[in-house]
Amino acid sequence: MIFSDPASVAVVGASDDPAKWGHWLARGALVGRDRRAVHLVNRGGGPVLSEPTVRSLSELTEAPELVVLAVPAAHVPAVVDEALAVGVRGFVGITSGIDEAVVRRIRAAGARILGPNCLGVYDAATSLHLAWGRFQSGSLGIVSQSGQVGLEIGGLAATSGLGVSRFVSVGNQADVTATEALLDLVSHDMTTVVGLYLESFGPGIVPAMAELRAAGKPVVLLTVGSSAAAQEAALTHTGALTSSLDVVDAACRRAGAIRVATPAALVDLAAVLSGGIPRGRRIGVISDSGGQGAIAADLAVAAGLSVPTLTSVDGLPEGASRRNPIDLAGAGERDLANYARAVEVLARGGEVDTVVLSGYFGSYGEDTPSLESAEVAVAERICRAAAESGVTVVVHSMRPDSAAVRALRAGGVPVQHTIERAMAALGDATRLASLDERSTRAASRPGMSVPAERMKAGGPPGGDPCASLAARETSTAGERQVARTNAPPSCRPGYLTARTLLDFVRFPRAHAVTSVAETRATPLRGPYALKADWLAHKSEHDGVKTNVTDPAAAFEEMHARLGPGTYVLEEMDTRENAVELIIGARQDHSFGPVVLVGAGGLHAELFNDTAIELAPVTPATAREMLDRLVCAPLLKGWRGAPAPDVEALAEVIARISEMISARPDLAEIELNPVRVGPDGVVAVDALVIPDRPLQEECAE
Amino acid sequence: MIFSDPASVAVVGASDDPAKWGHWLARGALVGRDRRAVHLVNRGGGPVLSEPTVRSLSELTEAPELVVLAVPAAHVPAVVDEALAVGVRGFVGITSGIDEAVVRRIRAAGARILGPNCLGVYDAATSLHLAWGRFQSGSLGIVSQSGQVGLEIGGLAATSGLGVSRFVSVGNQADVTATEALLDLVSHDMTTVVGLYLESFGPGIVPAMAELRAAGKPVVLLTVGSSAAAQEAALTHTGALTSSLDVVDAACRRAGAIRVATPAALVDLAAVLSGGIPRGRRIGVISDSGGQGAIAADLAVAAGLSVPTLTSVDGLPEGASRRNPIDLAGAGERDLANYARAVEVLARGGEVDTVVLSGYFGSYGEDTPSLESAEVAVAERICRAAAESGVTVVVHSMRPDSAAVRALRAGGVPVQHTIERAMAALGDATRLASLDERSTRAASRPGMSVPAERMKAGGPPGGDPCASLAARETSTAGERQVARTNAPPSCRPGYLTARTLLDFVRFPRAHAVTSVAETRATPLRGPYALKADWLAHKSEHDGVKTNVTDPAAAFEEMHARLGPGTYVLEEMDTRENAVELIIGARQDHSFGPVVLVGAGGLHAELFNDTAIELAPVTPATAREMLDRLVCAPLLKGWRGAPAPDVEALAEVIARISEMISARPDLAEIELNPVRVGPDGVVAVDALVIPDRPLQEECAE
Repeated sequence: MIFSDPASVAVVGASDDPAKWGHWLARGALVGRDRRAVHLVNRGGGPVLSEPTVRSLSELTEAPELVVLAVPAAHVPAVVDEALAVGVRGFVGITSGIDEAVVRRIRAAGARILGPNCLGVYDAATSLHLAWGRFQSGSLGIVSQSGQVGLEIGGLAATSGLGVSRFVSVGNQADVTATEALLDLVSHDMTTVVGLYLESFGPGIVPAMAELRAAGKPVVLLTVGSSAAAQEAALTHTGALTSSLDVVDAACRRAGAIRVATPAALVDLAAVLSGGIPRGRRIGVISDSGGQGAIAADLAVAAGLSVPTLTSVDGLPEGASRRNPIDLAGAGERDLANYARAVEVLARGGEVDTVVLSGYFGSYGEDTPSLESAEVAVAERICRAAAESGVTVVVHSMRPDSAAVRALRAGGVPVQHTIERAMAALGDATRLASLDERSTRAASRPGMSVPAERMKAGGPPGGDPCASLAARETSTAGERQVARTNAPPSCRPGYLTARTLLDFVRFPRAHAVTSVAETRATPLRGPYALKADWLAHKSEHDGVKTNVTDPAAAFEEMHARLGPGTYVLEEMDTRENAVELIIGARQDHSFGPVVLVGAGGLHAELFNDTAIELAPVTPATAREMLDRLVCAPLLKGWRGAPAPDVEALAEVIARISEMISARPDLAEIELNPVRVGPDGVVAVDALVIPDRPLQEECAE
Repeated sequence: MIFSDPASVAVVGASDDPAKWGHWLARGALVGRDRRAVHLVNRGGGPVLSEPTVRSLSELTEAPELVVLAVPAAHVPAVVDEALAVGVRGFVGITSGIDEAVVRRIRAAGARILGPNCLGVYDAATSLHLAWGRFQSGSLGIVSQSGQVGLEIGGLAATSGLGVSRFVSVGNQADVTATEALLDLVSHDMTTVVGLYLESFGPGIVPAMAELRAAGKPVVLLTVGSSAAAQEAALTHTGALTSSLDVVDAACRRAGAIRVATPAALVDLAAVLSGGIPRGRRIGVISDSGGQGAIAADLAVAAGLSVPTLTSVDGLPEGASRRNPIDLAGAGERDLANYARAVEVLARGGEVDTVVLSGYFGSYGEDTPSLESAEVAVAERICRAAAESGVTVVVHSMRPDSAAVRALRAGGVPVQHTIERAMAALGDATRLASLDERSTRAASRPGMSVPAERMKAGGPPGGDPCASLAARETSTAGERQVARTNAPPSCRPGYLTARTLLDFVRFPRAHAVTSVAETRATPLRGPYALKADWLAHKSEHDGVKTNVTDPAAAFEEMHARLGPGTYVLEEMDTRENAVELIIGARQDHSFGPVVLVGAGGLHAELFNDTAIELAPVTPATAREMLDRLVCAPLLKGWRGAPAPDVEALAEVIARISEMISARPDLAEIELNPVRVGPDGVVAVDALVIPDRPLQEECAE
């Protein structure tokens, strides 16, 4: 393959000046000269790194397969044309500022280019080193949109003992995309885990991450944007509540990948995952000092791990506390083998999925050289216990490097110099483990299992004026006039239209009313809600009145304020013990349809209590979303209240998610609030927003 | 001073075996032999570290001032007796398992002991090294209840370039306490910042931390317990909501200290603080790579910093983005001086309080030795910019160590190898800065500034049966009988008594009622609430009914269920736009009285939305507590609603905090819910719990 094991390479712009990139790229290329022909091209023609050079590609007797472009941007077009003329098949575009036209010429010639504006490519398996920087061979595949972030990841991977199997700096992705670079790693044997840095996401990223996961190579994704300026002006609460990072996280869950916030967190997590994904979230903590054990346990819980009480701890050294965290209380120092014994007891006991050893281990040989070999032997014993048991073991050592630390890393046990890095990595790895559980449990989409009356009324509400979105659009003229007098022109379907579209959702009985007389003649039962059908944010515009007992009076008041238009008189959902939520869905510009559920009313906004997934979701996944909410206890029956009908609620979420997925003409759907009680789900307001083109057309 | 600069020391248990503690302690003691006489005591009498030894202290011609006990516990009593006989003034108790009786003999003789079960003491200023481990001289004073955690802090301080001025491992604190060790640092010139590890807190800790802060030496506190098993069974919501760590944080705010969760976080923060507390939370981020800048900015916001838009960025290199984070976009690599220019522009521009430079700087000289001196010069320029401007500068360097990194540290600019450590430390430092603001703003307790009617009704509610807590206690017999039929025996004052005690709080008008006739004759206006006076958790025992329109019927129903006793008929607070909160106060066993305010109803519990301070607080501090709540926007008028009377609310919080401080006979006070509207505060339920002894007496 041209970017992973080219038959021959040429570095154009090779330099003997160590301050120049052409120097480093030449030096790197020469590393692989036992495997492939390496040509250095230098305009002056003098030797580089004591190797002969040619002045141009045309001087070579045979065309190199891959050319590294390390010349100023102004020279690139001529070099590329010359290269294409002699039959070069691929380019690594280190130089920034390479013209789009040059890229088009390369592609038109059937050749490929990595970058431009990238830091190159490295492959440990093929001694291909066409990149800035030093790499240590290992098991982490890196694909990075930012060269420097990729280098930082590579440097940290070297320090951690993980090492790099392949590094692809995709730069501007003018031709080779991150998705393509990811998919190349599926069959790359040395790669056991993938680190990905991206700032923007194409549609192929989720499937590529999923394919890597299926191949047993989980992706750790680093991205940015949590501090980005406010969300784009959102039309709905759903829009305001689904930040770009929330959607990225949803995409990761879908793909079996996991997001981190820093290069070090990426490498720490990858180092854990390179030994396999932990089985679960139960952790055993071992330390020779009560303080360090307590600090570790606090961090474990903060990272989402559980520190279970242990029952089978036979074999722990005399004097050690048997509670978790296990405090060896000096027994480790008295006999280093006690560290290994404690790890063995926990690894074999079946009561924990991960073990952290925190503290002085790794330092003894440095302090007392006579202890070094014994400490290394204990380290190897710890590695064996981890390998044989399948329990994930991570060591926090107060010494950043020592013979024992190196022995642990060589034996597949990650070592961290700070306990927070050890625990954060285990917490992240365990989150990945829980995704596995989910995919195992998640059945294919079942048929509807919830009786319709729990999520839907028997028939459409009376008096609905519009049968479809299209029908609704024909009647906008009059309402637009109304809107002008009260709010910016609106071209959204009103509440009644939304109810019709969402015919699988149960709403309270309602009528369209346009006159006082109609309110007087209503067959509905109070208390009522009166709503201005056309207003999206009714409460903020005083377009909704609840607990109405005299609908005629309420209509007169609201009509006097908001003018003519369609109003909705609705029976109130007065059920006690109903819990309010918001259900929403929208099209995300990077990841497609997404669905959201959140705590109702001001809770979602104030407390950011929401769960988001890529749509569609099954009812099982919807139930998991509900479980993730901070307000989840309310859905289990709060303080003895009867439990709401979560099954019906999950069904509504799944149906909304299917609708947004099947209807690209809809930008957003929102049920807010949704009231769920023991006898089912009732949506009390709904909003459907067509895709932008429709709106624009309409606003003309 | 005996533990900081003794005139002479003896190590009893000195050993030539490098695997023994007595070896390390002897070696350390000998470091100070130019300043003081050092005696080594070894039972065998052979040379230790090529130095002569004596077999026992009595062989010495003059008594050492300080003795290090590094012999097995069984030998300690004899050594101590011998030492006291010859006039030794102080002991360092390394050995664990030293008997309480030995400590008493030491204290009775007017001598002192550090520990036992400690790792010793180190003082850089006096070459006193009577501790396990190696130390690098510097500015961090360490006081640690755990020797090993203290050592870890010391080791990290050495790596970070901060160094240690003094290390005191207080161990079991049988005599010398952490408080005493802290106070010793007030006048310790080398110490500019203090790291404290504690697992339990004596009453002197807060004043000692405050005194250090007043001396310009802020304390960074590391403690544990966030993962501790459930809170002790709490009698009130206040009890359940005030975790021990929340109270520790409140104590830190009071003392001007700050809590961290790990040794590394302690050292990172101390390294920033050793150069002074940042002026505020505005940060400028500089990187040569957009990706690294974006990662840094995300972390900054997550750490509570603000990344402001910059207006005066003249002098930035060509091609650099002028937005914050500033992306040098390769200009740094082209000319290293551009890194310094960017720091200077930000440091001098007055638009930020802190600057982080993130990425490759610190690596150039390692990659290209010819660049080393230039890079060091740039590092020195960065240090000057920091020193001259007073802006806090922290560098994240992809290289953990280099000449430039060392130059930065030597010049007072902390360097971190991972960006998350840099940002976490700046976030923590900025939290400390905000405490400074607060103490500057906080005036002394003003007189009551809120008209009484906004927090209090004109007179006590009608029909209150008890005038005081004591009076209430005399009438418990009958109620106890009631309680037996419905709930465990209760000896708490009921709601009506609580109302009387809290006579500065406004409650709805209410009556005690014991018969249907009384409810029929009520002069109160509905809707009513009916409550069983004696029940603490009324709603959980169906002891409260709200929205009552027929009080007689409600009374009959509740009376039939709960039996005879005092019931309360109360007017409901039906004000619209009132926000519900909980106000509570309790005695904390470590820190004394504390006060809490939280979001009302289930919000506080589900979303943990509370603010806690040591009591008493001023109304100004109470307002700050309210500002910290996630639900604070509700108190500013949510979506156009009229703003509640926050001033009156703060006054109630302050008064409750004063009451718990003045009344050690009260264990807890709780107003829940408290409803605050534009026209003032009304408490709708109240609970007062006497101190435990009173309860126990009562339950007999």
